[in-house]
Amino acid sequence: MQDQQKPPEWQIQEWLNSDQPISLASLRGKVVVMHAFQMLCPGCVSHGLPQAQRVRATFSTSDVAVLGLHSVFEHHDAMTPVALKAFLHEYRLTFPVGVDMPSASAAVPQTMAAYRLQGTPSLLLFDREGMLRWQQFGRPDDMTVGAKIMALIMENPAGQGVEDKKEQEEQSGCTPEGCAI
Amino acid sequence: MQDQQKPPEWQIQEWLNSDQPISLASLRGKVVVMHAFQMLCPGCVSHGLPQAQRVRATFSTSDVAVLGLHSVFEHHDAMTPVALKAFLHEYRLTFPVGVDMPSASAAVPQTMAAYRLQGTPSLLLFDREGMLRWQQFGRPDDMTVGAKIMALIMENPAGQGVEDKKEQEEQSGCTPEGCAI
Amino acid sequence: MQDQQKPPEWQIQEWLNSDQPISLASLRGKVVVMHAFQMLCPGCVSHGLPQAQRVRATFSTSDVAVLGLHSVFEHHDAMTPVALKAFLHEYRLTFPVGVDMPSASAAVPQTMAAYRLQGTPSLLLFDREGMLRWQQFGRPDDMTVGAKIMALIMENPAGQGVEDKKEQEEQSGCTPEGCAI
Amino acid sequence: MQDQQKPPEWQIQEWLNSDQPISLASLRGKVVVMHAFQMLCPGCVSHGLPQAQRVRATFSTSDVAVLGLHSVFEHHDAMTPVALKAFLHEYRLTFPVGVDMPSASAAVPQTMAAYRLQGTPSLLLFDREGMLRWQQFGRPDDMTVGAKIMALIMENPAGQGVEDKKEQEEQSGCTPEGCAI
Repeated sequence: MQDQQKPPEWQIQEWLNSDQPISLASLRGKVVVMHAFQMLCPGCVSHGLPQAQRVRATFSTSDVAVLGLHSVFEHHDAMTPVALKAFLHEYRLTFPVGVDMPSASAAVPQTMAAYRLQGTPSLLLFDREGMLRWQQFGRPDDMTVGAKIMALIMENPAGQGVEDKKEQEEQSGCTPEGCAI
Repeated sequence: MQDQQKPPEWQIQEWLNSDQPISLASLRGKVVVMHAFQMLCPGCVSHGLPQAQRVRATFSTSDVAVLGLHSVFEHHDAMTPVALKAFLHEYRLTFPVGVDMPSASAAVPQTMAAYRLQGTPSLLLFDREGMLRWQQFGRPDDMTVGAKIMALIMENPAGQGVEDKKEQEEQSGCTPEGCAI
Repeated sequence: MQDQQKPPEWQIQEWLNSDQPISLASLRGKVVVMHAFQMLCPGCVSHGLPQAQRVRATFSTSDVAVLGLHSVFEHHDAMTPVALKAFLHEYRLTFPVGVDMPSASAAVPQTMAAYRLQGTPSLLLFDREGMLRWQQFGRPDDMTVGAKIMALIMENPAGQGVEDKKEQEEQSGCTPEGCAI
Repeated sequence: MQDQQKPPEWQIQEWLNSDQPISLASLRGKVVVMHAFQMLCPGCVSHGLPQAQRVRATFSTSDVAVLGLHSVFEHHDAMTPVALKAFLHEYRLTFPVGVDMPSASAAVPQTMAAYRLQGTPSLLLFDREGMLRWQQFGRPDDMTVGAKIMALIMENPAGQGVEDKKEQEEQSGCTPEGCAI
């Protein structure tokens, strides 16, 4: 029913709010909620990023990983990693944010291009197996997003405990979820 | 983990927006979302009832039934069934609403008392088997409500189709969901 | 530029939140902000009445009197004075509210008809001399309303003190503003 | 009653959305509403700047001039003039914005220091004579702001027409209000 193709790897220049690289493979066993945004995109600031924070506050970190993807496709000289760091600090965003790798030849960065995102904000949901299950440009409402995430959690509620345990054994210090306060 | 006791029967004086009585038995096979309210309760008008409408707009009627329960425990002479009908009309609420049966001896009506509701607004979630699974006084947020409803839907996604079919055979005209526009 | 005709007298069946009748004459010297509403009108409940409360909280009672006018033109059996009292209690509305006098021959009550109001919510602004200066159906924004009220206050800032004093001499107990907490 | 001291001159590094420098002297005859902000200040983005836009939409440009003051006192390398230009473009802010002159020795820029602003957002109201009449840190509500601006307009409604005429004679092309669409 849904697209079960393996999605493209994320191409990330730098991870903020995380002391190690993050990939779909490293999050295997969790539902992954990725919010693609630009720091100067009004709809991202007023809707998408607050919603990502509510996702993180609503679901257990053992079930759901929340990530940001900073996909700059305009005003590249204004939305630098230095500016993004100040932005994350001022808006108190503590989940990991990957800086989408710039393209050598185009305005649209590499991960954004690989997923054919229409713009920002965009929301991407991956299941526990790392398959892309939902991709939405714009402003989906909280009830729909909450329901879609829970549907993915419930597909395999038993298996999650095992993956979770394995993941914790391999880690020390900060989790892929980031170094939250 | 959750309370699996059979919940009390609803004691209803009159159903609005439905041409037949509704019970948990008649909704077997669907997740039931019941919003207990008073028409002059500010939190119900600003939060609970709009949220109930969003539940109805978000989920398929083959999975989820949305109901109101008008549980008047104060200002009984102001919140009569006649006034409630005008209220439902003005606020364009089209899901079925049961008028909680007044008590002969107390201010609190019978269904509200049987479920020991703390006040209004209160939200009650029943699973496909008619078991009460969540009961919340106050203002739960949309993301949490969306997730909790989907968790109940996903407990038995296969069985639902059968129940749905049986239910439709037994009915004619309006569904228990009401006579929506 | 503005209509300077003397406006129609208010025809009031009963005043709530006031122990004495209120008229434009009794409020001479103050800017009068009258909010015409129906207790089951969604736009009144969500916009107009909260705005009237903000007017009352923003301006000095020596400059501005805030009043409600309950102009029922539909669902007359639901929006009775008894129901209105419960409504004012539940929504904690403490400014004086006049029940617009029903018409013997029409659905629209008498004051509403005399002012040719288009519906509810409607806002009416009277200057310190009791002249009608602005009448607006719908949802004017707070900034505009704040500016329009201040324009009327500033037309005669000096005269206000005198009128105020006279008014207080004539009164005892509750003011025309009502018996606020 | 109010402070009638001549306020400090604005020290501006660069004006955006204006093809000429702007000063209190050049705006003589108009009420001036200045919103001091930082582009990465959440309260400025969600409250102060939208409010400044509402001020501009509510009042006549012959009575009121709306200006921004970008007073960066933190994250200087993120909130550069280049980044500010992208921000103004994305948020569709078309009123003139002055970049507060950085201090050689302190984090707080020069105009912010001269006015002893407590932070951002801050709102400053100047009367038609260029006197500072109100200065507020934080989030004043729309009704209060609308009333305070109208009070300053009404202090000298007659004089305004003359000033306005003189001002227009001296200008060509864009007005100090900016080059609005």
